[in-house]
Amino acid sequence: MRENIVTSDNFEQYLISHPFIGKPQNLYNSMNYIMQLGGKRMRPKLLLLAYQCVANELNQDAYKLALAIETFHNFSLVHDDIIDNAPIRRGKNTVHKEWSVATAILSGDNLLVKSIELIMNTSFANKDKLLNEFLMLSQQVCEGQQIDLNLPTQEIITEEEYLEMIRLKTAVLPAAALRMGAMAAGANSENGDLYYDFGLNLGMAFQLQDDYLDCFGNSSETGKLEGGDIIENKRTIMYLHALKNLNSEDKDKLQSWYDNPAHDNDMKVKSVRDLFKKAGSDNYLLKLKAEFEDCALSNLDKACHDSETKQQILSLFELLKTRTA
Amino acid sequence: MRENIVTSDNFEQYLISHPFIGKPQNLYNSMNYIMQLGGKRMRPKLLLLAYQCVANELNQDAYKLALAIETFHNFSLVHDDIIDNAPIRRGKNTVHKEWSVATAILSGDNLLVKSIELIMNTSFANKDKLLNEFLMLSQQVCEGQQIDLNLPTQEIITEEEYLEMIRLKTAVLPAAALRMGAMAAGANSENGDLYYDFGLNLGMAFQLQDDYLDCFGNSSETGKLEGGDIIENKRTIMYLHALKNLNSEDKDKLQSWYDNPAHDNDMKVKSVRDLFKKAGSDNYLLKLKAEFEDCALSNLDKACHDSETKQQILSLFELLKTRTA
Repeated sequence: MRENIVTSDNFEQYLISHPFIGKPQNLYNSMNYIMQLGGKRMRPKLLLLAYQCVANELNQDAYKLALAIETFHNFSLVHDDIIDNAPIRRGKNTVHKEWSVATAILSGDNLLVKSIELIMNTSFANKDKLLNEFLMLSQQVCEGQQIDLNLPTQEIITEEEYLEMIRLKTAVLPAAALRMGAMAAGANSENGDLYYDFGLNLGMAFQLQDDYLDCFGNSSETGKLEGGDIIENKRTIMYLHALKNLNSEDKDKLQSWYDNPAHDNDMKVKSVRDLFKKAGSDNYLLKLKAEFEDCALSNLDKACHDSETKQQILSLFELLKTRTA
Repeated sequence: MRENIVTSDNFEQYLISHPFIGKPQNLYNSMNYIMQLGGKRMRPKLLLLAYQCVANELNQDAYKLALAIETFHNFSLVHDDIIDNAPIRRGKNTVHKEWSVATAILSGDNLLVKSIELIMNTSFANKDKLLNEFLMLSQQVCEGQQIDLNLPTQEIITEEEYLEMIRLKTAVLPAAALRMGAMAAGANSENGDLYYDFGLNLGMAFQLQDDYLDCFGNSSETGKLEGGDIIENKRTIMYLHALKNLNSEDKDKLQSWYDNPAHDNDMKVKSVRDLFKKAGSDNYLLKLKAEFEDCALSNLDKACHDSETKQQILSLFELLKTRTA
């Protein structure tokens, strides 16, 4: 077994031993606070595994690039939490609750800058390409978040529009992380694209699973409000499917739950869940998710020919497939 | 006279003919809206003039770099306006008023990303250096803004702390713009530093003049609320000077105006102005401002040896020295 194998521990260790340093203290404290709130560190791990698969080794620059991706992810979390007015993340106060909206805006801005600085501080020969990939990613994430904000004001949403939103808001991040890892390690662009597609399909499956768990997951396991999307009248893929496939009476019921303020949220969640099941929307989502997973697996088979690393990637993948939170 | 001389018009023309394009429409509209609100375009013009002075010509890449600086400036305006809860900029709604806080956060984020993309899209041989300068600038501006937010909670502020805040929040931007222009044109680092120092001293003088005009300017000329800083109890350089130099009775009066809610803001502004004058704080500020201007002029003499370009820079400078708004 190789020494430099990617585990949760060694990326976490790298992150902890590379805090952001600067003044004023509260700005940098807020940045390190969100960075150190934990999480699965999926994106940097995927980047490191792609790097390892191509280069057959890891080095400090690969970790720096992985930290850049995690830093970017945290920038987007800090700003999204302001936008969503979310008080809690991973069981702790969000940055704008712990400090203020003003500090959270600046904290996110500086995390974005730091993520680019980390890339600039690597010595990869194709740093320009990596940075361009990263800038494209950054724009797509902003666009995806704005498209998500626009959805409630849109009269009609198609499934394609919903999927495009989650592609930009969620799936391009693991995709770009994987392609950056592969490219930094010297993969050709064809191989890089296979990693990208793997990440994109994985990300889509991930988000669809999130949507499923939000609706049908057990809140004691997910740690989230049960049926949060339903309570917020989010027109998810299950809602869009149900609306198309319910009979006219049930369709009216579903629309009525979404169009009128609910007096009893538990009742609303239960009723909407039942309507989703009646329309087969839960199975529709699970089938769609499985398709994305199958594509991802096929991409991975073509992209990565190092069996040990592939096994590690699949372990992350299995973790995803069975995760409940 | 050279054809490619820098005027307001040709940078403005470049900006107008290079809007940001992308989807969703409202995100990109909000970015182009703030970019096209006008203004003196001091920072990009300074960058172009430094470039012209060193290279004796201008080209598309120089304009692109100038647009990057202006885009960055607009990113910071959009986020600062949210932080300051400002409804109006240049007589129009701020981005968060015209759209929403959420869109303004994303609009600023994407402007920051676009500014870096513009730099990446140039073909300067020392692009890495330019980008590093730009990243340092970005961090300093975030830090300066947070230091400014922290000041009201600080028991005691020294003049040095106040000056450091305006250095980071305001002066590093023209400084970095000038050094980037010079470096992109091939200046050596010593010459680049002279441009930087020129911009820094110019920026300090600029901000001190702003502070002076906020207090003693005519609102019909400045377009700003008369005595806005006083009404907001901002502990500016004049306040800090007056507190140190007034007799004990007047010092108590000044503190009382700042520590207690005012029933009559006009009366407060008038009284505090009188106390500033009594302490000689207005002249103290003007002397300090003149010192920064003298340093700036001396830096410029050493930095730029092209008399025509220097004259153009001095014209901007004169505009600054005599400006009332």
